Amino acid sequence: MKRFRICRDTRPLRQFVNRHAGRRYKTTACPNLDSDPTRLLLQLCRDGYYLAPGPDHMDRLQQGTGCSYGPLGTELKNSLLQQWWGSVKRSRSTQVFGISTLTARDDGSGEGSPIVDVERLNQLLGAEELTKAQLIQRIQMLLRRSTSLRTSLLQGALEQYSSWLELVNKRLPFGLAETGLSFQPLDGSGSQGEATYASLVWFCSPRSSSQWLDYWTRLRLQWWRKVFALAPSEFSSQDVPEEELQAGVSRGMKIVYSFPWGQETLENLWSRGDCELLQTHGGVRAKIQCRDGRKLVVPHVISVASNMDRGIMAYMHNSLQLLKKHDGKQKLYQRKVLKLHPVLAPVKVALDMGRGSTLELRQVCGGLLQEFLDAGISVWPGYLDTTSLSMEQLNTKYDEMGVLFTMVIDEKTLESGLLQVRSRDTTVREFKHISEVKGFLLRYIRAAHNM
Amino acid sequence: MKRFRICRDTRPLRQFVNRHAGRRYKTTACPNLDSDPTRLLLQLCRDGYYLAPGPDHMDRLQQGTGCSYGPLGTELKNSLLQQWWGSVKRSRSTQVFGISTLTARDDGSGEGSPIVDVERLNQLLGAEELTKAQLIQRIQMLLRRSTSLRTSLLQGALEQYSSWLELVNKRLPFGLAETGLSFQPLDGSGSQGEATYASLVWFCSPRSSSQWLDYWTRLRLQWWRKVFALAPSEFSSQDVPEEELQAGVSRGMKIVYSFPWGQETLENLWSRGDCELLQTHGGVRAKIQCRDGRKLVVPHVISVASNMDRGIMAYMHNSLQLLKKHDGKQKLYQRKVLKLHPVLAPVKVALDMGRGSTLELRQVCGGLLQEFLDAGISVWPGYLDTTSLSMEQLNTKYDEMGVLFTMVIDEKTLESGLLQVRSRDTTVREFKHISEVKGFLLRYIRAAHNM
Repeated sequence: MKRFRICRDTRPLRQFVNRHAGRRYKTTACPNLDSDPTRLLLQLCRDGYYLAPGPDHMDRLQQGTGCSYGPLGTELKNSLLQQWWGSVKRSRSTQVFGISTLTARDDGSGEGSPIVDVERLNQLLGAEELTKAQLIQRIQMLLRRSTSLRTSLLQGALEQYSSWLELVNKRLPFGLAETGLSFQPLDGSGSQGEATYASLVWFCSPRSSSQWLDYWTRLRLQWWRKVFALAPSEFSSQDVPEEELQAGVSRGMKIVYSFPWGQETLENLWSRGDCELLQTHGGVRAKIQCRDGRKLVVPHVISVASNMDRGIMAYMHNSLQLLKKHDGKQKLYQRKVLKLHPVLAPVKVALDMGRGSTLELRQVCGGLLQEFLDAGISVWPGYLDTTSLSMEQLNTKYDEMGVLFTMVIDEKTLESGLLQVRSRDTTVREFKHISEVKGFLLRYIRAAHNM
Repeated sequence: MKRFRICRDTRPLRQFVNRHAGRRYKTTACPNLDSDPTRLLLQLCRDGYYLAPGPDHMDRLQQGTGCSYGPLGTELKNSLLQQWWGSVKRSRSTQVFGISTLTARDDGSGEGSPIVDVERLNQLLGAEELTKAQLIQRIQMLLRRSTSLRTSLLQGALEQYSSWLELVNKRLPFGLAETGLSFQPLDGSGSQGEATYASLVWFCSPRSSSQWLDYWTRLRLQWWRKVFALAPSEFSSQDVPEEELQAGVSRGMKIVYSFPWGQETLENLWSRGDCELLQTHGGVRAKIQCRDGRKLVVPHVISVASNMDRGIMAYMHNSLQLLKKHDGKQKLYQRKVLKLHPVLAPVKVALDMGRGSTLELRQVCGGLLQEFLDAGISVWPGYLDTTSLSMEQLNTKYDEMGVLFTMVIDEKTLESGLLQVRSRDTTVREFKHISEVKGFLLRYIRAAHNM
């Protein structure tokens, strides 16, 4: 093991992060990863604690519905949603308000799958006095009056629209943002697919709705690409052909990602006109009109709906790199690295023990762990793992999990306070003083957020 | 309007925040607020953009189910969930892993309300060849095989338990944390009540399960009370009488809040033994055993489930203060202030315009707004509101919304760069230079997080 000089970084942070994020190796694009890149991705997701083990992930993922996430996947999902909220709120158009509406809806719209009141249904099924025809009629009535699960987040925003008119002085444009579950029956199986959506419903002047659709498509594509992607070109936007548009939608765009199994839609942007808004408010124009210059108009609606479960898989796939590397003996081997952006990487640092008195080292690790947790740095307590792994195996494991830094505490740390810090992105190992590492991580994370 | 000296605060931040959070007025406890404190609370929630206007909030709130939130309520909910995650992860026991499981479950457990596959049901209802008896039988079969909505977050954690055993080296204790929706039929109405729960399922040695139950009760009560409460004594913990315990639960505790309409449960802590865990894993002890010292044991389960929708209402009620104040002419009037903790307050600062050239002032406000948004400070663009309100009316409005600071930009700002900053908690008005206000807010918020 080679010692490096203690590094006190005084260069500007942006440069510093860029350096760490630099790619030193010849990389191979993801689609050529393996004979079956989809399986490889899934396997890494499971082994890296992103997805919970389960038989039906493959189908669910390809259908774009949510599945059970493990600790790292849950953290990644939370981060991605947080980033989405931040981007929507920070966008130049400051008139975006967050809302939260109900998932189970009593609107009698007949949309979405009904949730049955089992007790009443059983009463009907047990009522001997009913003829078959009467029974059928009663069941149909019960279904019509049932609560049903929403199939998108649009309807909630349309309903809330009029409540927030006063807040914006009836001035256009403004938007209502929401994140949450929506449900769709899965093809053929009769069971339900759920996915977490991030939705922005944008109310604007009819004159400018087309420009706004372009504006949001540009902004959203930029977000998917620029913010976290390693290979931005895998994200792209497309016009939706007329025959694929929903009823009432005059123009549509979509943002797609090129998965190994084909292109899938991450986000739909529809220009919906004013029909649904009018319908939601009983056709009463006076209740929903807004000022457009000096005129009063019924606004047009643009809906922007991102499937965040699919988004997570897109980033997982996008950040997976196969690196070819020569070891000391010039033998070629492959390194799989999940190069998730530092902001999204669910684990910022792993703590492990090297050689030395286990008891003492464990104490040092425990202290550092608590220090990191208190500072809000997400940390992996690798030192608690008693499986004996070589340093090489540890690095492989953490690279596949996308852990940004690995810190190893050993007997030298007890002597001199120095510990080894290895970066996922450069594979460089440096020694840092134990009193500096928290500050180092915080600066690194903050710089990544500001990039 | 009185001028104050320009204040450059050099005192330690903790003291500084405490000073701002200090209460200068005689306060009246919430329950005496008004002849109908519940209605008053609801009205403030609506007027302050916490809840979306709607007819059924009252019932839903008292039943502890979620409702539609407005912009401020949505922000508050997100903050509270984030704080919960932080507290669970930071707790001494570092072995808590976040998970995310499905809301619609195919487990055939018969629990929860089934979601009907409408297409198949309609096929059955339309099948003329079926007799009434056959129809009933087929419908019952369809129901049994339906996806159903989860009624708690427990089952998902029990199922995932075995997947994470390797991760913890089969060492007890550890926990699985999750936040998400769960559903319960509303009494009598046949419709569904949904609520966001924060759940911790804790796996521990059978020998220490009783101590762990006490530990978590203490820790959780402390969280509710200490972290954000203005009147901590309204939160309390209680033993659950034996006759109220669910089947299989050996001991239970609950954390309650004293609402104006009576005590309601915020959180249930159940000591559940090992039955459900065994049942979930088909009774195969070998699959689920963990090390307890040198022995292998099937762990006991403690479930901690917090109703976050009710939690939001508890904090809203807890932070509402009625303050009696004399104005200059010694006339007594009442001030309603929503003193939400600075960490939870959804709007940190409101920006308004005073006298001066509207065009120029609007530009300054716009610049400041963007600066705050870029720094992640949640800001209320009051200057866009063209309703003409006096400074007194503005203050009243923002106090009722719980806005921490109000900044007024006027012609003096254009001349000297000074703007007026008013604190919700002290009502003190100070002048600060426009170049300083972002730093001031960031320091204030950071200090509040560290308190």
